[in-house]
Amino acid sequence: MGLLEQTVSRIGPLDPEAMALARARQSRLTKPPGSLGRLEELSIRIAGIQRRPRPDVTRKAVFVMAGDHGVVAQGVTAYPQAVTAQMVANFAAGGAAINVLARHIGARVLVVDMGVACDITGCECLISKKVASGTRDLSCGPAMSRDQATCAVEAGIEVLESELERGLDLVATGDMGIGNTTASAAIIAAITGQLPASVAGRGTGVDDAGLARKIAVIEQALACNQPDHNDALDVLSKVGGFEIGGLAGVIIAAAANRIPAVIDGVISAAAALVATGLAPQASDYLIAGHLSTEPGHRAALAHLGLEPLLDLGMRLGEGTGAALAMGIVEAAVKALNEMATFEQAGVSGALGDQ
Amino acid sequence: MGLLEQTVSRIGPLDPEAMALARARQSRLTKPPGSLGRLEELSIRIAGIQRRPRPDVTRKAVFVMAGDHGVVAQGVTAYPQAVTAQMVANFAAGGAAINVLARHIGARVLVVDMGVACDITGCECLISKKVASGTRDLSCGPAMSRDQATCAVEAGIEVLESELERGLDLVATGDMGIGNTTASAAIIAAITGQLPASVAGRGTGVDDAGLARKIAVIEQALACNQPDHNDALDVLSKVGGFEIGGLAGVIIAAAANRIPAVIDGVISAAAALVATGLAPQASDYLIAGHLSTEPGHRAALAHLGLEPLLDLGMRLGEGTGAALAMGIVEAAVKALNEMATFEQAGVSGALGDQ
Repeated sequence: MGLLEQTVSRIGPLDPEAMALARARQSRLTKPPGSLGRLEELSIRIAGIQRRPRPDVTRKAVFVMAGDHGVVAQGVTAYPQAVTAQMVANFAAGGAAINVLARHIGARVLVVDMGVACDITGCECLISKKVASGTRDLSCGPAMSRDQATCAVEAGIEVLESELERGLDLVATGDMGIGNTTASAAIIAAITGQLPASVAGRGTGVDDAGLARKIAVIEQALACNQPDHNDALDVLSKVGGFEIGGLAGVIIAAAANRIPAVIDGVISAAAALVATGLAPQASDYLIAGHLSTEPGHRAALAHLGLEPLLDLGMRLGEGTGAALAMGIVEAAVKALNEMATFEQAGVSGALGDQ
Repeated sequence: MGLLEQTVSRIGPLDPEAMALARARQSRLTKPPGSLGRLEELSIRIAGIQRRPRPDVTRKAVFVMAGDHGVVAQGVTAYPQAVTAQMVANFAAGGAAINVLARHIGARVLVVDMGVACDITGCECLISKKVASGTRDLSCGPAMSRDQATCAVEAGIEVLESELERGLDLVATGDMGIGNTTASAAIIAAITGQLPASVAGRGTGVDDAGLARKIAVIEQALACNQPDHNDALDVLSKVGGFEIGGLAGVIIAAAANRIPAVIDGVISAAAALVATGLAPQASDYLIAGHLSTEPGHRAALAHLGLEPLLDLGMRLGEGTGAALAMGIVEAAVKALNEMATFEQAGVSGALGDQ
């Protein structure tokens, strides 16, 4: 049994006892029952994930995985391919949006080269897991081999598990890869059955002609590759990307290690579709950080059965929406842990309860 | 000219030059234009509020104002009136939800007795601005005199201005007062013209019979008091509350001192309606923190022309939704200030721009 199968087999159900204890504590805290809305639900689910009635999400990390895409040759992007490597250097230097937002919420950022086209030098903090120097053009054949797809997912598992010894209570997923909204829309179309025209978006900002090309490219990719929606590795290998596979591995490893994973936008959601295709129980460990303006995101979240926490018109990727949501998740857990109970505070209960 | 008129007269327009500079900087940061969505708009507006292209919201405070309501005699609440004072003690002890969330986002909490029914002793940090020991029952006459309404608003102004010397870059409003969703719904109905049945909600959790009584009480209050929707002090005095008046004062003083104010749920929104009735330009300084599940909140925000940042099913009050949103607002400002530009990071621009 390989690393992927081993890791999937370790994913268990949420702990009902920890959840019941967390729910009981919520009912004793000094507030009307349910008045913290989704914060209460979140804290209870995280208790179940972490198997403890008083969970803790102090040690946080954003996994930003980067890869290039052969499909850029089809003119589906607003920025040149060189930007992938340039932005990886920006992440390493701490100047990108994800660096700012991760600092804001107290998370560390792990930057992983899963398959950037060029070699990136001079970035000591960069984790290299390069499967290949970019995928092949998915519009005229598989983006990668099935072995490469497995390799990408297993690299993601390794990256997450190598962070465990530093302490890891909450994970966010992020991405960088010029061309990866095309691959993600193709994955989403393949797995959810939605039409390419309804899940493809403008990505970093293509014009109408670019969007039309993108839709045609995805239609062609699905027609020529015929990905099997019941076989997530087949979908990943035929129309995916190395960073998407790596993020699927991060999600699977987080679930196996009982760590909640906050997913970001459309690329992370495509990775989550791959991850839950390989390991259906991983969906219990997922939190949808936000709703991106990319149209495929909504379809993917609906398929995953997830409600996004935030809806701020964001579409940057990098894990930015997930990082912002991590701050909300931590607030939810702190409210459960730190609020006084009615008894402790000497506050009267509801009139009907007296 | 009294303190209220003086303060209103100091409110000026947003600074278009600072906003233009902030907008120009946003376009040079290493991200596709507009990809941070509402974070970008927020940062630009705060630049205009603070009159500087690189705003700063480091020093944050939540103003939690408490007051009691004579209308509780009508059986419109799920908790006894004693809870107002008990919760004020809980705020002072640091055990309430607002304390936890304010600590999480790095804000201080100011707790103000605007008109709690009993005397609260032993809370050294409590700011006393008690106008009276609770309002009169608004269902059978004015809740307070016009002088008391002015006094409440001016007390709010004084509380905010006394915090300026400690440093104050961002304000949130919060409330505590058993019965105050009834007063707030009455204000919202009076000012927006919505029917009581469409703006009254379950507050801390009344049952169907309680909700029916609440709607009838609001209808009776409007019928017997005939508040003039063009005269915000008239509305406040007839169907409002002391903490609502105090929060209106906080909002007006924040605008006069060029400080953005994040408003919380339905009580803060009612206060914002009173504040913008007295000072229409104050609306430029308001940020809607979240959307409460109380039905009147949506009507009030629509009247104020505000889109809430968060929608998490919360209905606790205390400033909890506003405090969570403060974390988002600070993230928006940090992204503007701390991200690298394309030039600094050596990142290529969009293909069409080359």
